[in-house]
Amino acid sequence: MDENAPIKVYMTKKLIGVRPEDSVQEACKVMVEFDIGSLVVVDENDSVVGFFTKSDVIRRVIVPGLPYTTPVKEIMTKELITVDANTPLKEVLKIMAAKRIKHILIKEEGKVVGIFTLSDLLEASRRKLETSIAAE
Amino acid sequence: MDENAPIKVYMTKKLIGVRPEDSVQEACKVMVEFDIGSLVVVDENDSVVGFFTKSDVIRRVIVPGLPYTTPVKEIMTKELITVDANTPLKEVLKIMAAKRIKHILIKEEGKVVGIFTLSDLLEASRRKLETSIAAE
Repeated sequence: MDENAPIKVYMTKKLIGVRPEDSVQEACKVMVEFDIGSLVVVDENDSVVGFFTKSDVIRRVIVPGLPYTTPVKEIMTKELITVDANTPLKEVLKIMAAKRIKHILIKEEGKVVGIFTLSDLLEASRRKLETSIAAE
Repeated sequence: MDENAPIKVYMTKKLIGVRPEDSVQEACKVMVEFDIGSLVVVDENDSVVGFFTKSDVIRRVIVPGLPYTTPVKEIMTKELITVDANTPLKEVLKIMAAKRIKHILIKEEGKVVGIFTLSDLLEASRRKLETSIAAE
């Protein structure tokens, strides 16, 4: 794990998306199928129009008691938090800790190209440890 | 972040618990209130009898379409994954990555004394970076 390396080295490039009209329950099935904690919401032009996490489902669906059939567009976050793909890892960790978020979208030339999550941080930390153990 | 330090250095000591009879919705309110992703389930003797995460709520409540009034004892994990408080951080990260879990309970002398989550890893990584920048 090189704290000065750009976040694009550590991000996940495969973004999993749902449509704004999909129900919360359908979206949750996708999260479980791919074992992920967040989804991007994409419109018919494949533009990212929203984002939401498991925490948003808990906070915005279960706590207020909305039905599982609620469309995701009603609970998604529209103001995306993004960082540029060349931002150093250490800056990204600082932003995530300050904002208390576990997932952040990565942009390159104005387009969302990936996501970095705390699971990616775990993977990066673990790989670094393996490398340092192998070098001993 | 010292990879060889025991996990008790990095764990969160404050465990937030709910009762087995509490509903999923009540438990979710507690998660939101304390901004946490998992809860321990404690019985009347204050023994930890179960554990569950936001992912379990998604997977075991929303996907199968159970009501929000379902008691947590019906969806909690009874077989707790724990590590001893003296286990080195690097070993704990290895276990979490292998099992694909984001939260692990910490035991000392047979008793659950804390929890370590990926948010604690973020905090530890960030603090290490601040220390190394200050030392430059």
